[in-house]
Amino acid sequence: MNKARQAPNFDIVRTSHVEFLVTDLERSRKFYVDTLGFIETSSTKDRIYLRGVEDRFHHSLILTMGTIPAVAHIAYRVRNDTDLDLICDLFEKEMNLPVKWLEDGEDEEGLGPALRAQDPFGFPLEFFKSMDESEWLLQHFDRHRAARIMRIDHVNVLVPGVDPVSDWYTERLGFLCSEYTETNETNPKIWATWLRRKPTVHDIAIMTGVGPRLHHAGFSVAEKDNILDCADILASKGYVENIERGPGRHGISNAFFLYIRDPDGHRIELYTGDYLSSDPDWEPLKWKLDDQKRQTFWGAPAPEKWFNEASTLLSVFTGNTVPTSRPLHDPRKKKTDVTLAH
Amino acid sequence: MNKARQAPNFDIVRTSHVEFLVTDLERSRKFYVDTLGFIETSSTKDRIYLRGVEDRFHHSLILTMGTIPAVAHIAYRVRNDTDLDLICDLFEKEMNLPVKWLEDGEDEEGLGPALRAQDPFGFPLEFFKSMDESEWLLQHFDRHRAARIMRIDHVNVLVPGVDPVSDWYTERLGFLCSEYTETNETNPKIWATWLRRKPTVHDIAIMTGVGPRLHHAGFSVAEKDNILDCADILASKGYVENIERGPGRHGISNAFFLYIRDPDGHRIELYTGDYLSSDPDWEPLKWKLDDQKRQTFWGAPAPEKWFNEASTLLSVFTGNTVPTSRPLHDPRKKKTDVTLAH
Amino acid sequence: MNKARQAPNFDIVRTSHVEFLVTDLERSRKFYVDTLGFIETSSTKDRIYLRGVEDRFHHSLILTMGTIPAVAHIAYRVRNDTDLDLICDLFEKEMNLPVKWLEDGEDEEGLGPALRAQDPFGFPLEFFKSMDESEWLLQHFDRHRAARIMRIDHVNVLVPGVDPVSDWYTERLGFLCSEYTETNETNPKIWATWLRRKPTVHDIAIMTGVGPRLHHAGFSVAEKDNILDCADILASKGYVENIERGPGRHGISNAFFLYIRDPDGHRIELYTGDYLSSDPDWEPLKWKLDDQKRQTFWGAPAPEKWFNEASTLLSVFTGNTVPTSRPLHDPRKKKTDVTLAH
Amino acid sequence: MNKARQAPNFDIVRTSHVEFLVTDLERSRKFYVDTLGFIETSSTKDRIYLRGVEDRFHHSLILTMGTIPAVAHIAYRVRNDTDLDLICDLFEKEMNLPVKWLEDGEDEEGLGPALRAQDPFGFPLEFFKSMDESEWLLQHFDRHRAARIMRIDHVNVLVPGVDPVSDWYTERLGFLCSEYTETNETNPKIWATWLRRKPTVHDIAIMTGVGPRLHHAGFSVAEKDNILDCADILASKGYVENIERGPGRHGISNAFFLYIRDPDGHRIELYTGDYLSSDPDWEPLKWKLDDQKRQTFWGAPAPEKWFNEASTLLSVFTGNTVPTSRPLHDPRKKKTDVTLAH
Repeated sequence: MNKARQAPNFDIVRTSHVEFLVTDLERSRKFYVDTLGFIETSSTKDRIYLRGVEDRFHHSLILTMGTIPAVAHIAYRVRNDTDLDLICDLFEKEMNLPVKWLEDGEDEEGLGPALRAQDPFGFPLEFFKSMDESEWLLQHFDRHRAARIMRIDHVNVLVPGVDPVSDWYTERLGFLCSEYTETNETNPKIWATWLRRKPTVHDIAIMTGVGPRLHHAGFSVAEKDNILDCADILASKGYVENIERGPGRHGISNAFFLYIRDPDGHRIELYTGDYLSSDPDWEPLKWKLDDQKRQTFWGAPAPEKWFNEASTLLSVFTGNTVPTSRPLHDPRKKKTDVTLAH
Repeated sequence: MNKARQAPNFDIVRTSHVEFLVTDLERSRKFYVDTLGFIETSSTKDRIYLRGVEDRFHHSLILTMGTIPAVAHIAYRVRNDTDLDLICDLFEKEMNLPVKWLEDGEDEEGLGPALRAQDPFGFPLEFFKSMDESEWLLQHFDRHRAARIMRIDHVNVLVPGVDPVSDWYTERLGFLCSEYTETNETNPKIWATWLRRKPTVHDIAIMTGVGPRLHHAGFSVAEKDNILDCADILASKGYVENIERGPGRHGISNAFFLYIRDPDGHRIELYTGDYLSSDPDWEPLKWKLDDQKRQTFWGAPAPEKWFNEASTLLSVFTGNTVPTSRPLHDPRKKKTDVTLAH
Repeated sequence: MNKARQAPNFDIVRTSHVEFLVTDLERSRKFYVDTLGFIETSSTKDRIYLRGVEDRFHHSLILTMGTIPAVAHIAYRVRNDTDLDLICDLFEKEMNLPVKWLEDGEDEEGLGPALRAQDPFGFPLEFFKSMDESEWLLQHFDRHRAARIMRIDHVNVLVPGVDPVSDWYTERLGFLCSEYTETNETNPKIWATWLRRKPTVHDIAIMTGVGPRLHHAGFSVAEKDNILDCADILASKGYVENIERGPGRHGISNAFFLYIRDPDGHRIELYTGDYLSSDPDWEPLKWKLDDQKRQTFWGAPAPEKWFNEASTLLSVFTGNTVPTSRPLHDPRKKKTDVTLAH
Repeated sequence: MNKARQAPNFDIVRTSHVEFLVTDLERSRKFYVDTLGFIETSSTKDRIYLRGVEDRFHHSLILTMGTIPAVAHIAYRVRNDTDLDLICDLFEKEMNLPVKWLEDGEDEEGLGPALRAQDPFGFPLEFFKSMDESEWLLQHFDRHRAARIMRIDHVNVLVPGVDPVSDWYTERLGFLCSEYTETNETNPKIWATWLRRKPTVHDIAIMTGVGPRLHHAGFSVAEKDNILDCADILASKGYVENIERGPGRHGISNAFFLYIRDPDGHRIELYTGDYLSSDPDWEPLKWKLDDQKRQTFWGAPAPEKWFNEASTLLSVFTGNTVPTSRPLHDPRKKKTDVTLAH
């Protein structure tokens, strides 16, 4: 998987944050801050900036008041300021795609200069180097609550065809493949890939489905018990229906997980127990699509909506929703009734 | 619930053990001992005697080689030897039901004199006072494995009508009700009861269903993580299909649970996190049948087979299977396709 | 140990609560409520009534504003109202000791009629049957904080000679012995006993030391992680010096523990992982004083102050402090410099 | 701390393994394999090769039969084969220090070509690129035992003066500083540094003390409970005296820890709960020597032997022990009686 990759001349460090449009900001604060235990760094009338207790920077999740639930952008941190220019060149000169520059703090509080663009597959991306530091709460255990969210870990996206997307992220953006799923056909096709920049299993997972859409944002917690505690608290506060899948363990990534839906339907994964991938030469792990341990090493089967529902994307230029299409090829025996969420 | 009870003149201490007929003893040993971590006290060609690490006596589970999977008996410990005579009187004189006396070690290794009888609803019961002590392994942590089973906690049975059974166990055997479920009708009926002799939530739960059958035997573990570890190990050893439901938390009892099926289909609950019930005047907790938190405070919905499949009972006199019948009254909206397991 | 006991004609159910005199109520609230996570049932200018999340009654700990740190009383719940009269008879008629009756709510909010007396060894006791119920928070997991205190478990007291005290509690009050320590001399003496009314390891432990004093009040938590979390939170909030001993595991009781000192020096044990003792015929477990696993199955050695410091008792009649004396016989090799705390 | 660093032209990936000389191989196997749960990859008459369940390569710990307990070498993995030549140049040409080449499998089973050298401070080092892969046991949970060792995390060494050692590792070998301690003097001196190549807190910690010696090898576990379980098992198997310090939490690194001594006195740290350090621009965290939270965020004080005892080093050329010297400067108020272990 990683053999032919030509390393790009810039350095993406990791997935940094996601901006969700939500339709009732106070309802979302009750969910994310009061119930899940995200730390609120700051807020305005229309926005809440959130982070985890291991996060050292201003935010790893932004909730913005909107008219529909949607994903405004997915942000990646780069190593050097000059990387932004190199990525700008990639979009404008190599891909012939438009970009948009944001000045220091122009749209996001605490953010330095940033570059926004829609990737060739429709995902609204942001790249930046600098963000204000926030108080590091890792050792302020009295402020750890509920799920005790540590930090953002990854995003997981749906696309109608994984191959070109995964190739673009690896070849053009320099992502490395940790694990992947291929179909069981004689000429197997790539069904999903788990790609990383930071030395864990992934910064982005790319799965086959109606897309482009965001399937979920994954947040890291320290131990399995934090996830069980969070389930207890969700149920105690009337959010039992928001628990969509789990707890269980994935084969891919080895993570112990819980999927929850926020009041607008955005999906959050609480995630713990994957592994370090910093050795440079580990071969990607291959899974076959019909291997039952792949998605669910153990745990109740994922409900249909887990496969079918996902978050709509917006254009970074127009704010309009990004149209989606169905996979051309879906070898799963049980056809799911694909409904377009949001 | 507990108001009108007239205390009997004998004293049942607790649920002691269950005897399962299994069809391949070696296969069962691999499951119970090598995978779940039960302690094997001793065995013969046809039998394995098992206990947990908190158990101080010879066995809390017996696996006996048989031609079909079934429950040979459910045993209760009594306080005094004379209690056996009093229980004998209850069966023979008051209920006009037959009994069978076992001499010291006659059928079960390590067991003192015992009384066997079929209760009026068809359950094969055993009462005894004395059992050989076994090495207490609570502080031999090097011998705690997998689920680290502590001790038997309870049995859970299905009957076509809960009321008479629950009344008989409370009025004649002296059980106390900890929690119960009633239907949502104008004149609510008792749907299920959780009855105790030992000071936890229950020694026996009685639920509405095709019966008489044994729904499951519940074994206590010390912490939630023991259950998660057990799920990891079950999946690692190829038993992922044996995980039937959970992990999740019950509303009733507050327990964190996992239901697993043994190779013959007998259902085991791993159970932790209920509460002490030793204060004498706590009122039973009432749940309504349509309260979603009742069965599943949180966790994936129970699959249909969890409702429909259960273990067949045998007669303590003939060894023949005990016939079952369907509930006369079932107000659950979604009719389940009740299949008779085994 | 339990052989010769003549059961009394009343029934003590369990240890119910302790009243601590503290010298700065607001400082104590910050410690018990804001840091340890006790639930505050109610408070007045001079008092705070606390309970755990498994407690169903009004309080299991009372903090009362005082001029010195001390223990005002230790309370036991009885089964029937008539038990109070029988205990009154024991004190007045058999022991020729004074008693004091409290009317419903006379001194303690939420408490029914109560009997107070100083036991023959100087401990200020209270007996009662009725206490107001409070909201049961076991399944309000959103209100579980920090140590997630479940319920009071036991008290632990120091006396100059254990034998007569332990005998009085077993013979006159009906306590049963679960475990005990004896000295290593040729004619071993009882060094400490763990006595129970409720079916766990103990309601009261009686240890050799300068006394009568209260060594600690033990509160039950559900899992070991709650104790580790509490240590993290104590350290985060500047209370690291209040952690006196642990975490570790006791041989006796098998409990995983942490000892902490409140701002007035009262000692609290966070306690989890002991065992059910409801079977009527378990023999008490014997430990030898020089068995290292006895106190510390593993864990750092207890500091000297853990042995020497304890809470002063008050008279239930005069409010004066109860004088103490040293043990006549102390075979421990390393003589500790016994300082009288408070 | 990391400002002035000139990156070297080779790439050390991480700490790979340590070779301990032990004086009774069978006794060591009982400790490491049967008790701690290390996986034995293979063994000869004189050697045992061990790894953790997350390790993908042949070994992360070697036990070699010897006449005295000692450290034969500390190994680092490099990214490319050519890195070995560059490191050889550093030693031979720049430092004028001897090296020793090992052919594929010449001394260590499973190891490719390797370079050995004594660093300028006396530490016996090995560098290599290739090692045979071993079965990855991360998802063979049935083979996870006791402490469930995941992987080697770091080594911790004692030197009489930290500054030159830390500078050499950062400037010449390219390590980055994550955290450091400085003395409280007006002109503070560096007391200890935590240096990393892999993106966690450290691969090597360098502390002030009699040296050069190895203070401990740190192994990563997944969750705090694995450490508590290991303590229970150590105590059950008669190794309670081998638990030297903890459990507790470090301020530096945030790790929850337990220090244990093997039968020869080599010190192992079980370690969990540090943080990802993959963002390139995080400033090193500074701690003052008198900050009590630094070493022990909470937990019992470290015993004197924790400060004074450590493992002797051997020369990679002669096999002779490496002489040690005392720190010239030790501002700690309480002078420890420094005894030279082994």
